[in-house]
Parts: sequence; C-alpha cells; structure tokens
Amino acid sequence: MPEGRYLFSVDGGGTKTEYCVYDMDLRKMQSFRFGSTNYKNIGLKEAASRLKNAFYTICDSLNIELQEIQGMVIGVSGCDTESDYAVYQSIVKHMGLDLKKVYICNDSEFVFLSVADKPGICVISGTGSIAVGFDKEGKTYRCGGWGRPLSDLGSGYWIGEQMLKKWIKYCDGQEAYNEIYQTLEEFYHFEKAEELPYYIAAMSQRDITAAAHLVCDGADRGNSLCGQVVAEAAEETADLAVAVYERIHPEKQEKIHVVISGSIFKGDFYRRTFQGIFREKTGHGNIEYIPLNQSPAQAGIRLARDIFHAN
Amino acid sequence: MPEGRYLFSVDGGGTKTEYCVYDMDLRKMQSFRFGSTNYKNIGLKEAASRLKNAFYTICDSLNIELQEIQGMVIGVSGCDTESDYAVYQSIVKHMGLDLKKVYICNDSEFVFLSVADKPGICVISGTGSIAVGFDKEGKTYRCGGWGRPLSDLGSGYWIGEQMLKKWIKYCDGQEAYNEIYQTLEEFYHFEKAEELPYYIAAMSQRDITAAAHLVCDGADRGNSLCGQVVAEAAEETADLAVAVYERIHPEKQEKIHVVISGSIFKGDFYRRTFQGIFREKTGHGNIEYIPLNQSPAQAGIRLARDIFHAN
Repeated sequence: MPEGRYLFSVDGGGTKTEYCVYDMDLRKMQSFRFGSTNYKNIGLKEAASRLKNAFYTICDSLNIELQEIQGMVIGVSGCDTESDYAVYQSIVKHMGLDLKKVYICNDSEFVFLSVADKPGICVISGTGSIAVGFDKEGKTYRCGGWGRPLSDLGSGYWIGEQMLKKWIKYCDGQEAYNEIYQTLEEFYHFEKAEELPYYIAAMSQRDITAAAHLVCDGADRGNSLCGQVVAEAAEETADLAVAVYERIHPEKQEKIHVVISGSIFKGDFYRRTFQGIFREKTGHGNIEYIPLNQSPAQAGIRLARDIFHAN
Repeated sequence: MPEGRYLFSVDGGGTKTEYCVYDMDLRKMQSFRFGSTNYKNIGLKEAASRLKNAFYTICDSLNIELQEIQGMVIGVSGCDTESDYAVYQSIVKHMGLDLKKVYICNDSEFVFLSVADKPGICVISGTGSIAVGFDKEGKTYRCGGWGRPLSDLGSGYWIGEQMLKKWIKYCDGQEAYNEIYQTLEEFYHFEKAEELPYYIAAMSQRDITAAAHLVCDGADRGNSLCGQVVAEAAEETADLAVAVYERIHPEKQEKIHVVISGSIFKGDFYRRTFQGIFREKTGHGNIEYIPLNQSPAQAGIRLARDIFHAN
C-alpha cells in the first residue's frame, strides 16, 4: 500500500476536465475545473500538455509534493481500446507519477465504482451515451458509447439531431408547426429567417447538442413533440442498459445497482421513461437507481480510497 | 443572342466536376472530369482555382478562344443561398467570362431543365438528396438537400448511416446477425475484429456513404434487413418529392415530369419503392418518370442550347 496524504480523482470528459483532490489529514476535498483533455477531440500533444499543466498548477497551489500523493484515479470518456489506455499511461508517466499509483478507466466504470457495488449497471447520458454492466466476478460488459453519429444513441447529441431534423422538415414545409421551433429560433438567433434551413444544417456538433436541454424541458412541460423525441431517446438508452443487463444475468430477486449519470438524466420525463422501459424489458423487480448527485470527479475519491487506501 | 461556336455545361458535384463542351459546327460533344470544386468542401480559393484551371486546360486542348463560347450553364450542388450565387459569379468573372454568357443554378434545377419540361419535379439521391418542384409559371420550390447529418434524408449517406448504426448494435449484442454485416466487414477489411465498433464509429462521411451501394444491392437481392433500410430511405426521399408536389399543385389529370437522378436511384428496389410511395401519397395518375441516363453535364448541353441558342 503506497503512503501519502492526498488522493486525486480526475474526470476527463468530452467538454471539460475536473480534478478533485482529497486531503486525508484534513478530510477536505477541493475541485478544479479545466477544458477538454480528450485526445480524440483536441489531439494527443494538447491533451497531454493540458492534463500535465493542470496537475502541476494544482500541486503548486496546494503545496503538494509528488511523493505525498497516495493514488490517483482517472476516468476518461472515449477511453475504449488497448491503445487508448496506452496513450493515457504514457501521459501519466510524463506527469512524473508512478503507474502503480494510478488507476485509469473508462468514465462509466469510474462513475459506477465510485458510488455503487457489483452487480450493476452504469448508464451515462450526456453529450454521448453508454451503458456498462459489472457482474459479481468483476467482469465488465459495455454497449454504446462509440461516438457520434453512429453510436451514443439516445444521448444529448442524438436528441438534438432528431429535433433539428424535424425543424428542417418544418422549414421545408414537410412538418406542422410546433412551439419548440420558436423556442429554438430564439435560442440560436439566426440572422435571416429565409436562410433558416441553411443555418440549421451548418450547425456544429456542439450546437446540435445544445438543443437537447430545450427539448427535454419541453417534454417535462408536456409538449407532445418533445415528449415523442425524448421517449424515443429514453428507449434507445434503455436498450443499451438492457443489452448489458442480459450479459451480467443477475438472479431475478437479486438487488442490482443502476447508476444513472449525465445531464440528460436530470430531465424528469427522460429519467422516468428510461426507468419504466428498463423495468419492463428486463422484468427485474429489485433495482436501486443511484443518481450521481456529486460530480464524477468528487464521487471518484471514494474509488481512489477503495483502491489505494483500503482501510 | 451572343454568337459563338461552343456551348459549355458544368456539373459541380460534391465529389467530382464534369465539364462538357459542345461544338455546334461539328455537332460533337466532349466530356472532361476533374475533382470536387464545391467551395463548401475544399474552400473558396481552391474551388475557384480548380474551376478556372480546368476551364483553361479544356480551352487550350480544344483551341477555343473565349469569344467563341456562346454560353455556359453551371449546376452546383450546395448552391443554395444568395451568397452562394455571388461566390460562383465571382469565380466566373475571374475565368474571364461575361456574366451574361453564364447561367448558374443549383444542381437539381440544372438536371431538371436539361431533360424535362415544367410542371414537374427533380429528385436527386446520391451522396445527398433533394427535391425541387417547377410550376408552369417558372417558380421553383425546394425541399431537403441542406447537407448531412440533419438533412439529405434517404440519401446514400443516410442509408449508410442507418445500416452502420445497426452494425454497431450487432457488435454490441443488441441486434441479431445478418449477412450484410459480413459483406460490410469484407468491404472495409478492418485490422482487429475485437475493435470493430471502434473502427465503425471512427468512419469518415465518405466511408459511411460507401456502405449505401452494398445495402441497395442487398435489398435488390431480397435481404430483408437491407430492404427495410432502403424502403425507409425511399419513403424519406419520396416525402421530399411529395412536399414540393403539393406546392406546385398541378391538376390531377395533368402530366408531370419527375426526373430521378443520382446513383441511389440505380437500385431497383429503392426506385420502385420511391415511385410506389410517391404515387400513393400524391394520388397523381399521370406521371412520367425520367431517369437521367446521361451524366448531368452531358444533359446540361440541352439547357445551354435552350438558354443561349434559341433555334
């Protein structure tokens, strides 16, 4: 068991990176937020330099020496393949940390292990979507989460895409009017009304994803078109969870933890529809849903403690 | 009426550009193919320089002086807005041509006017999809064609995207096996089978579109999964055509020309399904379907003759 006073937890998402530092002597937690460190988005060199600079900035400001760090857990979205792990291991080595002191995993594994016990499932629906199942033997099974536009079904990007497709159809005279189009137009405030479909079609992936929260809010307020899109999204995401449920095959009466995380799950209509479909398709009665109420990086300190500080 | 011996027709597509030159004295047509000249794909400077260089190469090799050109028609995919027209007008001026000798239009208008008479509809389904309606008064109405991933429904990209989504679901254990997945795997020949979903998700837009022809072939051979995707695609494209049909509102007994163009329409199952849905949804009995058997640039010579050489 390595010694040291500090535990680190790092959540590397597609849009932001959060470092969380826990001082075991003072029992005090501090969080630090930075931009994206996903090397698939910003390139390897930039990701490595940002992760490293953020790390040194924190160590300097808190007066932490490398040897005082007992362990660090890093959860990274899009960390999928052997070569992805190798990339992050090499970044960690360049930060000056001993690999024995660092546990690198996919963001969904990170979230599940931080707040729940096996057997169970972690479902994340934010910009992207993924489900990972954990059986009692410690095996993991994943479904989804391979990125836009072919995977990440039912995610924020997916919801935005479906609604913007309908909006273009409305602009082209193919669909009837719905008040969500007015809400979207006010949100994006384009220049010329007559070039609306052109503006919509030229949107970036981030712009497309930004529509999701407006659509989820619409569904929560009872807008039926929003409700239709959000219900389809919830079903797509529930199907990811059902697929991994079938692979961890728990006993029917056994309690399973289902951790739900990501901004889309904050939508009431989405979350309730997801839970209804998951229960119906699995027929499982003993489910404990665990929403992630802290940030993943804050929750990750529990995982760091489990791995690097057993007692 | 400007004088001159030559008519030019240019088809600027998303992946290739074809120049066609007609020598009215010799009644002889020649075609020349170049790469993409779509400024939205390759940038304005590159598009302008390629269009210009191609033009001069042809004039040099055929010994054509600028004043011997009676007229030129240019059909460009993605030429949608006023600012798009302004861009191509400025390119034409830099080629040394008088704007009075040049007619610039969207590729679908180009295709329709080249082979058909008003009233009618032009439907293109290749990499993208669009429908444009032409009423007797000369007004045009468009639907679709705003680009991937939010528009161009039922196109080659769309078909590829739908099938690759199913393939990822199969890899993730969500869908049953179908032989099309084997066909796709042989076509793309990836390195490691265990990283298949990763490879699929990392595909470029061109890679995604490339799957469409395998799916259309599968549908033509009776594969039911391919048939399902292609039938949905045909319905999406037919809906574009129905929307513009409703705006040109022809008399029910009146003959309308429906020009169908683009590589996806070469699929028998797709074309027949499209025609069945269009007839059913419009209830129109007197439809003449005109497949484009020449290349658009070759067909465009008829349009150049209509505009610049009335007799």
